[in-house]
Amino acid sequence: MAKNIKTRAQDYSQWYLDVIKAAQLADHSPVKGCMVIRPEGYAIWEAIQRDLDRRFKETGHVNAYFPLLIPQSFLAKEAQHVEGFAMECALVTHSRLEKDPSGKGLRPAPGSALEEPLVIRPTSETMIGHMYAEWVQSYRDLPILINQWCNVMRWEMRTRLFLRTAEFLWQEGHTAHETADEAQTETLRMLDVYAAFAEEVLAIPVVKGAKTESEKFPGADTTYCIEALMQDGKALQAGTSHNLGQNFSKAFDIKFLGRDQKQQHVHTTSWGVSTRLIGAMIMAHSDDEGLILPPKVAPIVTAIVPIFKTPEERTKVREFITRLLGQLVGDAEVAASAKLAKPDSIESYFFDKATHQKVVVDWRDARPGDKQYHWEQRGVPFRLEVGPRDVDAGAFVLKQRLDRAKSTVQLAEVTAAWLNEKLTQMHTAMFDKARAFRDENTRTADTYDQMKQILADQGGFVRAWFKPSREAEAKIKEQTKATVRCIPFDQPSGTGKCIFTGEETTTQVLFAQSY
Amino acid sequence: MAKNIKTRAQDYSQWYLDVIKAAQLADHSPVKGCMVIRPEGYAIWEAIQRDLDRRFKETGHVNAYFPLLIPQSFLAKEAQHVEGFAMECALVTHSRLEKDPSGKGLRPAPGSALEEPLVIRPTSETMIGHMYAEWVQSYRDLPILINQWCNVMRWEMRTRLFLRTAEFLWQEGHTAHETADEAQTETLRMLDVYAAFAEEVLAIPVVKGAKTESEKFPGADTTYCIEALMQDGKALQAGTSHNLGQNFSKAFDIKFLGRDQKQQHVHTTSWGVSTRLIGAMIMAHSDDEGLILPPKVAPIVTAIVPIFKTPEERTKVREFITRLLGQLVGDAEVAASAKLAKPDSIESYFFDKATHQKVVVDWRDARPGDKQYHWEQRGVPFRLEVGPRDVDAGAFVLKQRLDRAKSTVQLAEVTAAWLNEKLTQMHTAMFDKARAFRDENTRTADTYDQMKQILADQGGFVRAWFKPSREAEAKIKEQTKATVRCIPFDQPSGTGKCIFTGEETTTQVLFAQSY
Repeated sequence: MAKNIKTRAQDYSQWYLDVIKAAQLADHSPVKGCMVIRPEGYAIWEAIQRDLDRRFKETGHVNAYFPLLIPQSFLAKEAQHVEGFAMECALVTHSRLEKDPSGKGLRPAPGSALEEPLVIRPTSETMIGHMYAEWVQSYRDLPILINQWCNVMRWEMRTRLFLRTAEFLWQEGHTAHETADEAQTETLRMLDVYAAFAEEVLAIPVVKGAKTESEKFPGADTTYCIEALMQDGKALQAGTSHNLGQNFSKAFDIKFLGRDQKQQHVHTTSWGVSTRLIGAMIMAHSDDEGLILPPKVAPIVTAIVPIFKTPEERTKVREFITRLLGQLVGDAEVAASAKLAKPDSIESYFFDKATHQKVVVDWRDARPGDKQYHWEQRGVPFRLEVGPRDVDAGAFVLKQRLDRAKSTVQLAEVTAAWLNEKLTQMHTAMFDKARAFRDENTRTADTYDQMKQILADQGGFVRAWFKPSREAEAKIKEQTKATVRCIPFDQPSGTGKCIFTGEETTTQVLFAQSY
Repeated sequence: MAKNIKTRAQDYSQWYLDVIKAAQLADHSPVKGCMVIRPEGYAIWEAIQRDLDRRFKETGHVNAYFPLLIPQSFLAKEAQHVEGFAMECALVTHSRLEKDPSGKGLRPAPGSALEEPLVIRPTSETMIGHMYAEWVQSYRDLPILINQWCNVMRWEMRTRLFLRTAEFLWQEGHTAHETADEAQTETLRMLDVYAAFAEEVLAIPVVKGAKTESEKFPGADTTYCIEALMQDGKALQAGTSHNLGQNFSKAFDIKFLGRDQKQQHVHTTSWGVSTRLIGAMIMAHSDDEGLILPPKVAPIVTAIVPIFKTPEERTKVREFITRLLGQLVGDAEVAASAKLAKPDSIESYFFDKATHQKVVVDWRDARPGDKQYHWEQRGVPFRLEVGPRDVDAGAFVLKQRLDRAKSTVQLAEVTAAWLNEKLTQMHTAMFDKARAFRDENTRTADTYDQMKQILADQGGFVRAWFKPSREAEAKIKEQTKATVRCIPFDQPSGTGKCIFTGEETTTQVLFAQSY
């Protein structure tokens, strides 16, 4: 068992932080609540971006960039919106530093106070609404299908790496449409994009549904979401898509001359996912030995660990590994990357230049056991071990991160296609495992007492008939710490009794405690 | 001549802004000095990022992300650094908005004042220095080769879209090394990467050289740069690479145990290019008709304009264009993208999925002349015009943006390779044209009077013997508005007389007025 990682059973919260630390994904920063995303973690975000960006573009969207700073008065234009964000705004008030007259350090120069304080964007509906009002005149200018990749800031008190940080990275899509129907179609299309991405790339099964009034985005008509279940039985919202109706178009006066020659307000949507997905991925898949990476976002798909004692053995093993690499990544890549390599270091070869995924060979001056441990904790899907006796047998040992199985593989078998197939199998196994866990931990409650019992004893999702209301949801949260995660799209026909009020209702919801 | 664009001869500054507006690359934002990068402009930045990111990774670098906000005390740790940036810092002082007691709008809640104000990063040497100090213990932890893509903020008074804005997007590389030699090699390697990128991708010829003491980065031992010449004879610094020596490692105590078992400070570098490159690209290549895009960063490589009067002609032209598209982008892509298309709109097909470059067909309900004009002003390298008579002849009209030449091309000739070759030819022609202009406008001055004359009459680069000194440079700037753009790497042997002091010197420099 890993000495530097608490087990999930011992302390799930600490396990999560230990896994991140052991894999060097992120670090706390000297600014409270802000994180540093280290290269191993950022490479996962790059893989997420690359795949999502392709999906956005294939559905007709383009990227743009809007300012970081928003005049505070913009926030106030949509009543629910300012209500939702005013308590957690980073405010820029000055534009110059000067020596503090006390002689100690610096201070914001009083003479540089801004006329109007600026908010670091917590989200960009307001700024983008303002610009769309300038850009849209006629129905010919619609739809606008824009996405933005950027940083945002919400001043959180209690933070946790990736899951909740004051600054985080995300994408926010903002679209404007001629009709309510088109806006609704777009809202659901992007929810589908998120669901497909979560399952096909992160191997995380998700439930699609709508949020209740009390859980929706401040300023939305309806918020849709994808919800995932973590290994401790808590739910995690992995992405949201909002139909904003005409709330922002009225607040920012985004009008157009319609086909009917009448002025009307556009219908807008917004949708986003963030670096939180990395937290979800860690908690959905990793084990007590550390990180397990879904193969599609693994920056390193395979780590090769040479074993040797004498210089002769080293030469023999090295020659074998060069052949192995040639078969995996191609001789041209081996030659190009070997040039960058330093002696006794980690050599790195592109397995796929399009996805930037790599194969590494660990030539560091360290014990093979320590190297195995190093790559295991970093969640690398496969490790290949090559010693002198393996070379004699024309084979190597393959260690699978997911099930920790070992097997012997003949060198002759190895090709890029062979590795790709192994990676696909691993993805499927991870998804199946996560789905089985989710299904086992989705229970039905017929009464409120039953639900409380399930939440207290087992956690997970609880499916129940429920008539959503702010009051009932607030009380349930107070008593059980659980909230309505969503009103799932797959609803039974007929009606049932609301577990809280006993009223007849047509709605089933999913309750859970959540991140 | 374009009615919405002033000519370069009339008003170069206005021409620049008109070109940007006509091509919809960017917009001013409601926050002073900050810009909105519109989709057409952002796609150019994405192309720049994609290419540079590949070059960074091929030279062994990885990406990471550090916090937006930096404690103000960090800036003060390096004396030159704080001197350089204190006057243009956006300062975060509060974390919450509340209703203003006056009843009018909102205000930063006094109770939420931060203990220490935070600076929005103008650059990240300080934050990254702090983190490297935590990460580096031994020579085995070196080198660290990290790059960051992000937004930064420098509160500028006089701003200009892309060239100088309060917020801009950039990349900043930050590396730490065991020895001074390694740091120097890295600094020059990245300068070479920038130079190759500028020439091979943006078709902008650059001069490589070192900055003088008075022009270097605040906190650097030496700053190297690439300098380009714009069409109005002013120079533009297109990228910088700094050898920071041990200045930041001493300020932030980034120490390691060396091979000699002694504690020592690392040697660091930093290097960056920004959205300013888009400004350079516009000013280096565009003409009085509007934008001309270097083909490698053109989001749309070809616009097809159909010409028809009757529905029958439309059908005939459409059928021809479908075949043309099939030959250019493949039938599968035609089928996939046609599904997204709306009637009478701009249809868009991926020409290259790896670079996200597109071919569009303009089916909007507008006059063909207006469409030609639309795509010409957006700098699209080639426009193809297809009318009923062209269809009968099995051909179409090709219009080249760069030289505005027209020719007839047989449909049978068209393949992706055909278009790629045309694009390559255009790149070369653009680079040759810009280099010829640069060479014609690089003059030698033997005396200060001669230099003043050249700067007043012709502008451009002036090459001269000069002994760099803060005093001399300040006076020359006052008298001529010109600065030493760089001490070029290609120096003659021997010595000459400094044009300002008459002293014997071994140094030739390039003077110019600059952006």
